[in-house]
Amino acid sequence: MLLNKNTLTGTELTGYAAGYRDELFDSVIPFWMNHSRDEVNGGFFTCLDRKGQVFNTDKYMWLQGREVWLFSMLCNKVSRKQEWLDMALHGAAFMEKHGRDAMGNWYFSLTQEGKPLIQPYNIFSDCFAAMAFAELYKATGKEEHREIALNTFRNILKRKNNPKGSYCKVYPGTRPLKNFSLPMILCNLSLIMEDLLGSEEVGRTIQPLIKEVMEVFYDRESGLILENVHPDGSLSDSFEGRLLNPGHSNESMWFMMDLAVRNNDPSLIQKSVDILLHTTEYGWDKQYGGIFYFLDLHGHPPQQLEWDQKLWWVHIETLIALAKGYRLTGRKECKEWFEVLHDYTWDHFRDPEYPEWFGYLNRRGEPLFELKGGKWKGCFHVPRGLYEVWEILSPNGIHKSMFQKDVKLTENI
Amino acid sequence: MLLNKNTLTGTELTGYAAGYRDELFDSVIPFWMNHSRDEVNGGFFTCLDRKGQVFNTDKYMWLQGREVWLFSMLCNKVSRKQEWLDMALHGAAFMEKHGRDAMGNWYFSLTQEGKPLIQPYNIFSDCFAAMAFAELYKATGKEEHREIALNTFRNILKRKNNPKGSYCKVYPGTRPLKNFSLPMILCNLSLIMEDLLGSEEVGRTIQPLIKEVMEVFYDRESGLILENVHPDGSLSDSFEGRLLNPGHSNESMWFMMDLAVRNNDPSLIQKSVDILLHTTEYGWDKQYGGIFYFLDLHGHPPQQLEWDQKLWWVHIETLIALAKGYRLTGRKECKEWFEVLHDYTWDHFRDPEYPEWFGYLNRRGEPLFELKGGKWKGCFHVPRGLYEVWEILSPNGIHKSMFQKDVKLTENI
Repeated sequence: MLLNKNTLTGTELTGYAAGYRDELFDSVIPFWMNHSRDEVNGGFFTCLDRKGQVFNTDKYMWLQGREVWLFSMLCNKVSRKQEWLDMALHGAAFMEKHGRDAMGNWYFSLTQEGKPLIQPYNIFSDCFAAMAFAELYKATGKEEHREIALNTFRNILKRKNNPKGSYCKVYPGTRPLKNFSLPMILCNLSLIMEDLLGSEEVGRTIQPLIKEVMEVFYDRESGLILENVHPDGSLSDSFEGRLLNPGHSNESMWFMMDLAVRNNDPSLIQKSVDILLHTTEYGWDKQYGGIFYFLDLHGHPPQQLEWDQKLWWVHIETLIALAKGYRLTGRKECKEWFEVLHDYTWDHFRDPEYPEWFGYLNRRGEPLFELKGGKWKGCFHVPRGLYEVWEILSPNGIHKSMFQKDVKLTENI
Repeated sequence: MLLNKNTLTGTELTGYAAGYRDELFDSVIPFWMNHSRDEVNGGFFTCLDRKGQVFNTDKYMWLQGREVWLFSMLCNKVSRKQEWLDMALHGAAFMEKHGRDAMGNWYFSLTQEGKPLIQPYNIFSDCFAAMAFAELYKATGKEEHREIALNTFRNILKRKNNPKGSYCKVYPGTRPLKNFSLPMILCNLSLIMEDLLGSEEVGRTIQPLIKEVMEVFYDRESGLILENVHPDGSLSDSFEGRLLNPGHSNESMWFMMDLAVRNNDPSLIQKSVDILLHTTEYGWDKQYGGIFYFLDLHGHPPQQLEWDQKLWWVHIETLIALAKGYRLTGRKECKEWFEVLHDYTWDHFRDPEYPEWFGYLNRRGEPLFELKGGKWKGCFHVPRGLYEVWEILSPNGIHKSMFQKDVKLTENI
């Protein structure tokens, strides 16, 4: 069987597409265009209150990179609008000028003027910078953007076995653990960089990553993805080893489906959907609704005091995964869960009065903060999710998000 | 005016003393004696569920030191019971054997067998180790305990301007901030170490610390203590600079009152009580009761997702401060707030069914976890608070906690 847009079997749910598109272009994108640009220093403000007012001026590299990526992606996949390209270039120029240390590592945060605040201890700053410049390169074709993306990517691969470097506080040898986040992000990043790296290198890169996610971090006994495992994939009976992050796992399952489509691997799609459905059921709060942020595999209290909160990205990433899983397999549990997640997410995270969505709810689903952006919430999960679900569910849509290679760019908004 | 036990002016509230004493000796101390000793490897388990069952075996240095301190303190201030001394020695032996690196810095955590897990990046591990061995030395008179306490204390002073050392992720120079925790803890630690350091050195050490707390970290405009300030004490308009931690501030105000009694400084008592009352009023959740964990000076969303939770130590430390403030000044707001805090704390944190208290409540005052001990909650704030309030409010009590020098050890339980 060759996977392509004609093999999409889930054909219901298409009625949802327009709502996701309208929310993206009528509410969310204007919010960031109107409020996040720092016209004085360049770059983006992301700490924005309910109405878009800046309440904190520091610039976090994760979110600078993610916003550059998002606007570049809209240029590449939706429409080559000059205002979107300008937004991407505006952020990229600030990053390029201020973002890196002498070794090419990306700082974690900068002041609004671009002075370094927090050292490059966090390799995900680099991941989102590579993602940004790779996507921007596809929009601009500029060698300078390609080079930053590639150099950053190579640097990530060099650092990947000791990503925190000298900032790592773990005593060597006693309890070696590896963390799920990096292989997970690299699955997504490698696909985004395929135009730059070439198909062969991406093929070689993703094979072991798929194995990591689906075998090493996958716990057969529970059927769940663990956040931290011993180097051989076995369980560490510790806070770190028992940690579950259902949103993380669900996000990685749609990355897996993308890789499965690329590799024409229907069995990987089925396995991803199995894990997605099991994790969603497991992580769902039967009392108040929504998916928990953190759980402990053995039901013990997790370390994280925020364990019972409901976070925007957890729910949006799960919606993407369920929509993808449904379109690719037609399984009715995907459709049913999509409807449950859709209702919860739109009822609780969407702000009925002002643009963009709330990020943090307490267990009962009430906003914990009214902010629309902060240190960790920027122009990323909400618009990416709205874009993805719109594309995936479009009845006659071109499904760019799933079958990029099949389609040509068209003006379709 | 010479401050001494005869100058205590607040004479109501004495009816509360017995309840605190009974809870300490009938519920809390037996809980830790029965459940926290690791008979195989030495040291203490602290991750204990509602009934005292161990759910995680790692050993956190903060809590090893604090439990050693607590049992030593009971020996020194309440009664020289062999079983308490044995508990203290049991923990101290494990710490002494496994707790330090080659430079004498204390690890943050160990496995149950005592292998290092997390490097000595956290200077409070050292503070609580010094506190433990200083108090233990007062109980044993052993040179070995005295030496560990003194060496650790000297090492803290050496490290105090760069406490995280190479683990510090702040880029030097851009936004230098100093943090309130260390001067605050040193105020308390210096008093505990007075027998070892001598009165003159303690006098010299605490003078600048009192100034730090009451002038540098004190924000005149708001009348509140800030968690992080510029080196000159001015406000940094950033997440860190706007951060308020009312429980921390209230805890430090009773340390100030202890120093004021030592220094015979009634004006420091009045100023401490002013800040205490204002902070308690400011930090009180008018909707659901209890004191917030974190707030932002300008009312913005703090970084901490757990900002609205109600934590055991915040409430217990506030009770100590209010009881002390009341006894020392007779101010009726102290009495009134003590009654409010007492009712909230006993109604929400005390477990009516099993020994020891809950640690973490959500904003509404419902337990977020059922645990009695964890990575940060050990045998410390609850029993120290019960002891302090019992002593402070005892009608014919000996007020050892306030006027240590005046009293001789007696068997009084």
